[in-house]
Amino acid sequence: MQTLTINDAIEGPTLTTLRWVPTFVVGLVRDIRVRWAMEEAGRPYAVRVVSQEDQASAAYRQQQPFGQVPVYQEPGLTLFESGAILLHLARDCEALMPADEAGRAHTTEWVVAALNSIEPHVQNFAELDFFAVGQAWAEERRPALLERLEQRLGALSQWLEGRDYLTGRFSAADIVMTTVLRTLRKSDVLSRFPVLEAYRDRCCARPAFVKALADHTALFEAATPPAR
Amino acid sequence: MQTLTINDAIEGPTLTTLRWVPTFVVGLVRDIRVRWAMEEAGRPYAVRVVSQEDQASAAYRQQQPFGQVPVYQEPGLTLFESGAILLHLARDCEALMPADEAGRAHTTEWVVAALNSIEPHVQNFAELDFFAVGQAWAEERRPALLERLEQRLGALSQWLEGRDYLTGRFSAADIVMTTVLRTLRKSDVLSRFPVLEAYRDRCCARPAFVKALADHTALFEAATPPAR
Repeated sequence: MQTLTINDAIEGPTLTTLRWVPTFVVGLVRDIRVRWAMEEAGRPYAVRVVSQEDQASAAYRQQQPFGQVPVYQEPGLTLFESGAILLHLARDCEALMPADEAGRAHTTEWVVAALNSIEPHVQNFAELDFFAVGQAWAEERRPALLERLEQRLGALSQWLEGRDYLTGRFSAADIVMTTVLRTLRKSDVLSRFPVLEAYRDRCCARPAFVKALADHTALFEAATPPAR
Repeated sequence: MQTLTINDAIEGPTLTTLRWVPTFVVGLVRDIRVRWAMEEAGRPYAVRVVSQEDQASAAYRQQQPFGQVPVYQEPGLTLFESGAILLHLARDCEALMPADEAGRAHTTEWVVAALNSIEPHVQNFAELDFFAVGQAWAEERRPALLERLEQRLGALSQWLEGRDYLTGRFSAADIVMTTVLRTLRKSDVLSRFPVLEAYRDRCCARPAFVKALADHTALFEAATPPAR
């Protein structure tokens, strides 16, 4: 698949991701959420990549004020924040969200819960192993961060007891939650929550995720690191 | 105003908040977001309070799986996550979100950005002063957390340069972002970002916020702490 750069015009749905990432984050870059949603929706899309220089540029900051990925574009609309992109894609796609008002509200509720009640605690804990190995503050802080994370995961596990998906049926919320849980792959914390492991595995077995992850991985494996 | 408890039936829009909180968080409990939105929308609402025992109960966890507040109820619908509640209230309220598709997408984008790109960094930094004063890990970690927060606030400040509100007009996104920024009240970090201070003050000067904060504060000032 040919990839676009920041200077190419977009002609249809286009996902922007990074040009290259180090191996340890392949599989975790948040473009995976948009790829997965597009596959569930059965919608083709183009891919655009940005370099570190692009990320810092004024032109890109108009599209993504924090210089991150993903950005989603369709003719007439440019959006950032993976959660907002998924809610936008879901508005007219029953594969991602029910059409009734209560179903939409509960899907939104769990998208936000994944992003605001779970992800910050996952991120704070996962960073210890990604970026702070052997640092004194990290060793002192680890027990408190783990306890807080386990409280949230315990509550989530209780909610999912007897449910296959967060709102009873698969939705955009499960895409966000599953990708949040996958961030813990360097830790064994999920092994204490078999309900959550089964939930993650159930979602990751979906053909749409398998295809999305393969495309995501292929792009980064084909990329060469920037010259230093 | 009479407040309901978890055992009372709801008859119309009802906000659930905590029965009592310590003084240092009065003004910051996230029910303020829902109160503010209801005032902007011109919609009356009832208030229900939960005790610490209620928060841990199975009945309440069915409404809020993490035992937190706020919960919003209307006949036939119970919702948690302040961001999702605001997006629900905004769906048929032009005071909170434009009616056109792009306007809705951008409002959602900035609600999510406030919750996922700004709040986690605000929270991690603010916690140092709320809960970790004098702890060794906190002193070692503070410079990195401050640097990351300042990067995000700098990007937000650049975005708001020349804009009164996040999407050009006041929306639910400004309610979330302003309440996130107010969490930094124990720190002087915002004083380095005059654009953000002016934005926060502009939003907090709105009569709807003034009314919401007064109601929020009055409830907690009238409450007595739980017996130990």
